[in-house]
Amino acid sequence: MHVLITGGAGFLGLQLARLLLKRGTLEIDGKPAAISGLTLLDVIAPPPLDDARVRVVTGDLSDPAVLAQAIDARTGAVFHLAAVVSGQAEADFDLGMRVNLDAARALLETCRALHQRHGQRPRVVFTSSVAVYGGALPAVVQDDTALNPQSSYGAQKAIGELLLSDYSRRGFVDGRVLRLPTISVRPGKPNAAASSFASGILREPLAGEAANCPVAPDTPLWLLSPRGAIAALVRGMEIDGAAFGERRTLNLPGLSVTPAQMVAALRRVAGDAMADRVTWQREARIENIVGTWPAAWNTARALALGFQGDESFDAVIRAYMEDAGIGKA
Amino acid sequence: MHVLITGGAGFLGLQLARLLLKRGTLEIDGKPAAISGLTLLDVIAPPPLDDARVRVVTGDLSDPAVLAQAIDARTGAVFHLAAVVSGQAEADFDLGMRVNLDAARALLETCRALHQRHGQRPRVVFTSSVAVYGGALPAVVQDDTALNPQSSYGAQKAIGELLLSDYSRRGFVDGRVLRLPTISVRPGKPNAAASSFASGILREPLAGEAANCPVAPDTPLWLLSPRGAIAALVRGMEIDGAAFGERRTLNLPGLSVTPAQMVAALRRVAGDAMADRVTWQREARIENIVGTWPAAWNTARALALGFQGDESFDAVIRAYMEDAGIGKA
Repeated sequence: MHVLITGGAGFLGLQLARLLLKRGTLEIDGKPAAISGLTLLDVIAPPPLDDARVRVVTGDLSDPAVLAQAIDARTGAVFHLAAVVSGQAEADFDLGMRVNLDAARALLETCRALHQRHGQRPRVVFTSSVAVYGGALPAVVQDDTALNPQSSYGAQKAIGELLLSDYSRRGFVDGRVLRLPTISVRPGKPNAAASSFASGILREPLAGEAANCPVAPDTPLWLLSPRGAIAALVRGMEIDGAAFGERRTLNLPGLSVTPAQMVAALRRVAGDAMADRVTWQREARIENIVGTWPAAWNTARALALGFQGDESFDAVIRAYMEDAGIGKA
Repeated sequence: MHVLITGGAGFLGLQLARLLLKRGTLEIDGKPAAISGLTLLDVIAPPPLDDARVRVVTGDLSDPAVLAQAIDARTGAVFHLAAVVSGQAEADFDLGMRVNLDAARALLETCRALHQRHGQRPRVVFTSSVAVYGGALPAVVQDDTALNPQSSYGAQKAIGELLLSDYSRRGFVDGRVLRLPTISVRPGKPNAAASSFASGILREPLAGEAANCPVAPDTPLWLLSPRGAIAALVRGMEIDGAAFGERRTLNLPGLSVTPAQMVAALRRVAGDAMADRVTWQREARIENIVGTWPAAWNTARALALGFQGDESFDAVIRAYMEDAGIGKA
């Protein structure tokens, strides 16, 4: 079986690729299926992974010719992670529409064409986001709480969910939508996601730098660690599509944490010097987006399907420090 | 002000056009705005309306060049009624996607380009459908019940809703989504809508023909008369966009009626001979679509905004007979 990861040069895509290469199999229909090929598709080339199974395709994901290079009759599993992040999709509407909507649709169309030619029905894991919710919300968000996105990113993700669900209902693909909490702590550099600070206020202090929290200290965030996100992506691919029932969308378990609690955890785990590097200058542009995301969730359905959140934010910070090779202060 | 009606050669489009020409104005921001031009856009030409204000544009609605002919800096109000109906969108996936999704998007993009060039922000009334709902539903559907379409038509309409909401949020248009109940009694011929029978079991007997009801007699339907639909479209255009609050979508008031009740009403209004022309052969293809549509609705929000449903189904039949020039049996 061949596996495709779109956004394969990104942080999650690369971590997922490394895990899949190490595992060597995905469990499909109760049996381990050997991963004989792993294609990483992105606009830029990922760093070399030094594995004969890996193939790199670079290009625009909304271009059917590029997708035709990345997907063929052997493709059994697609992780569609490529996306323009929330802040960028709000700043550049056309770019967001092209990548978050058109590319998702082109991917599904490529799968559909192969289905019609070869009868295959690849499993497709599509990552969605808490940004599909917004406006007045119930005290606790459920899997069947109505979507009401208040950003173009959220609208585009919600449209992608609808497309994946309909393509699945029609049997063109076997799709699964995972609504990821905000990932924290992301390694690397700040990005244009409105939630970028949710990693920055940990990562930058641990690297000896100042970092600003642009939202109120008591703003509730819904977080999942990178390790937890990768495990969820694999789980989402391995479970039986029928287990989703009539809804192909799933809210993943996370931790509800405020920036104040995050920095308190940083203080406990890494010391005062680290925590004191965080500044608290609010920025309306970020608050307007992040403030519409809900923070209390009922994820009983995902838990019953074997998905897991993180144990505590202290543990999340410790895991980040371990992965990044940072000693305790 | 110029008004555009897409699907202007269709039954609702034409009735709306006639009403607007008769009224001569739409109330915008509390003041009557004279309708100086009315453009009917459709793939086929409508019958001549014999009014100097009327202009006809024929062509593919997903073609930006066609839309550029239909919308210009004078366009202040757009009724987007053009759609591929449910049964047809299920039978021909590509056609449904092109008309129900791509054409809606192209229309919004045309408005956006004019907004960026001229600063105008046309009001856009977009008709959606009960087909955006499906699966397990609460006993009574609310405006904020989660969408879960179980047909490609429903998925495409739900995507159109998300697009219109985001284009409105960004200020490109002033959009309003009206989820229309099934329209009954439609004049004319049966069409490819799964709900076509909801008119056929009245219209055909009243024309002296047999008609089949393809769903169980106790299947709940959610109905609105043509007169009620036209009034709702006008109301949807005239109310202040801000009155929609954070949700640009609105479930319109209707009547919850079963085919058995509809035929009983036909019997009361038009006599046994008419009612006895209905046959009851169930068809799975229709039942599978119609059976996913909810029938009990809380439309308090629409009622508060001045929308009205029909008084009784007997009255709906009498109005149809009056409009069609059919005498009582």
